[in-house]
Amino acid sequence: MTDTLSSSGPTLGVVGGGQLGRMLAEAAAPLGIETVVLDPTPDCPAATVAREQIVGEFDDPDAIRRLAETATHLTFEIELADPDLLETVSNEADVPVHPSPGTLRMIQDKLGQNRHLRENDVPVPPFRGVSSLDELYDALDELGYPAMLKARTGGYDGRGNFPIESEADVESTYAAAPDDVLVEAFVDFERELSVVGVKGDDEIATFPVGENIHEEEILRETVVPARISDEVRERALSVAGDVLELLSGRGVFAVELFETDDGEILVNEIAPRPHNSGHYSIEGALTSQFEQHARAVTGRPLGATDLRNPVVSANILGDVDESQPAQLAGVDSVLSAPGTSLHWYGKHEVRPLRKMGHLTTIETDGESATELLSAARDLRDELTFDT
Amino acid sequence: MTDTLSSSGPTLGVVGGGQLGRMLAEAAAPLGIETVVLDPTPDCPAATVAREQIVGEFDDPDAIRRLAETATHLTFEIELADPDLLETVSNEADVPVHPSPGTLRMIQDKLGQNRHLRENDVPVPPFRGVSSLDELYDALDELGYPAMLKARTGGYDGRGNFPIESEADVESTYAAAPDDVLVEAFVDFERELSVVGVKGDDEIATFPVGENIHEEEILRETVVPARISDEVRERALSVAGDVLELLSGRGVFAVELFETDDGEILVNEIAPRPHNSGHYSIEGALTSQFEQHARAVTGRPLGATDLRNPVVSANILGDVDESQPAQLAGVDSVLSAPGTSLHWYGKHEVRPLRKMGHLTTIETDGESATELLSAARDLRDELTFDT
Repeated sequence: MTDTLSSSGPTLGVVGGGQLGRMLAEAAAPLGIETVVLDPTPDCPAATVAREQIVGEFDDPDAIRRLAETATHLTFEIELADPDLLETVSNEADVPVHPSPGTLRMIQDKLGQNRHLRENDVPVPPFRGVSSLDELYDALDELGYPAMLKARTGGYDGRGNFPIESEADVESTYAAAPDDVLVEAFVDFERELSVVGVKGDDEIATFPVGENIHEEEILRETVVPARISDEVRERALSVAGDVLELLSGRGVFAVELFETDDGEILVNEIAPRPHNSGHYSIEGALTSQFEQHARAVTGRPLGATDLRNPVVSANILGDVDESQPAQLAGVDSVLSAPGTSLHWYGKHEVRPLRKMGHLTTIETDGESATELLSAARDLRDELTFDT
Repeated sequence: MTDTLSSSGPTLGVVGGGQLGRMLAEAAAPLGIETVVLDPTPDCPAATVAREQIVGEFDDPDAIRRLAETATHLTFEIELADPDLLETVSNEADVPVHPSPGTLRMIQDKLGQNRHLRENDVPVPPFRGVSSLDELYDALDELGYPAMLKARTGGYDGRGNFPIESEADVESTYAAAPDDVLVEAFVDFERELSVVGVKGDDEIATFPVGENIHEEEILRETVVPARISDEVRERALSVAGDVLELLSGRGVFAVELFETDDGEILVNEIAPRPHNSGHYSIEGALTSQFEQHARAVTGRPLGATDLRNPVVSANILGDVDESQPAQLAGVDSVLSAPGTSLHWYGKHEVRPLRKMGHLTTIETDGESATELLSAARDLRDELTFDT
């Protein structure tokens, strides 16, 4: 079946139909790869560009089975997908799932992930698993203050992270956190970086190192190439390459990294899917992370990951105090800016800090990374959600 | 309604759901512009990426009315759309249609179009309308041999063109042609060029001049920028600009041109829609012709038309002797070529010379236009339809 293309083509059955599923469907279509998504929200972001949406919970066995019936390949765009269920349905229906459920399982358990990385000599921040207050005190004696208590499972965008500033915080923070936690030494980092990579059939490719700017633990902008030394760049690519080697199954993975004050690289998080910090690749790279994911999951050759132009992406977040129907104002200045592309995710409701869209600004006239960042921010900051 | 974006966003109701409708839907989605298409072929190329396909004939009043009910803006991707019907339904439903039905009507009548252009001092090949054999002989006395008899309506991709080599051909050719014809002097052209332009709300933009390579009157490749002198380039842009000024309504138009042996520019055809010779703009330009059409029809600002890189597009045509299920082999080498992008149109059946897809190769390493053309052709020529 590889090396040929027919209609209807291969069909990706995607668990999750948010913006990642939407951009995956947009990127897969020109390759003749169709998309069906499973999502509980009727008219989810991916619905309008996918062949079909199955409305159902991510962990509903019947819904996953229906997804497998319509698909030639299964994948997921959310870490919350159930690896056991995906594995079972994949076997039952004889439809491959990528990345492998084992990798998803490993990544879902933040403690297991860190242990796995450490055992394989991948640098991670110092950490300890803790299952009692006494163990937490012991760990903090070793790791020092401040530190971060992290939920073993389910955390993202800062959710599931509980900072401990000093010894006085320990008891109350531990009481507020979920039962299954680990504690990590606080990393005094210089920058947050990420490397998006893709594993194909016997090939691995990495995109250039991106520099990520977070506020309130939510990604705001990504600058590519990152404004770092060549030495740090090489180290980041090398560490990310080591991580990719440890993961099994095909698909796109994102490796989030800390660059410490002394130029060390530590792995912070791994995402087994296209990632917010790789959105720049749609306009910025020869092949986008979404096209790569579609290629990899369906067993096709990977595309080139070279940058076409220096590029900045900026998230459009819900700058509202409470949920309301989504209506974005100020769009015309974004549309009129040469070299800037708008991506709207089609969500019906805006909520505080919800990811509603993003914009990407490429270098068109010799702008520096800092100038591009400033231009993208200015355009993004003009956008407001009408009340 | 302009300068804002909400979900569901503006919805394009498109008469026609072929590859142009498909690429229009792909380009509109990131802007939050949704697409519904009307096409008689179930599961037409655009169906999989559009919100909905209405299955119906292009001239079925009820189907067009249903299209208008789902849409905020009407447009068309085929010249065969019925301008009177579009005008009536647009008025009834109070849904604007772009480009204007008047422009569509003018372009559908090749004789009226040529007269309109000539009256406005736009250079066209010498022509005469003829309604009898005697008139044809008279016209040929003036225009000379060889000449081309052309159907006034319905011609495309060489259909509706009837060459007259010498006086001996006249009677038989006239007998074989439809009733409503014009005769055009044969133009001894050096090159075929085209300029894709877009008319917005009080703004006009043109893409760079493309060089079109036809065989058997079907476009095979487009090279951008065209390999022409600066003088010819300026003349082509100037003539195309004059044509755009004469057209009413918003949207993308393509102006096909002859560059004669002595460097003159003559208008050959006008298409009131995105055009095969503008497909390169998806990867090659800052804004694609499809995104421009979506912006223009919905009354949003136009994007920049600058070229990002020199670029060649090559059509993947049905190289088969008779119709058969579409299965394309040799895809992997296209997918593996850095800087080359594949666009598959999702047609279920391949037919002789049917447009099944295209590929686009951008300059990544200083390649000349001629080298790009050769690379794109080589990749395209490796593709075969399995029997």
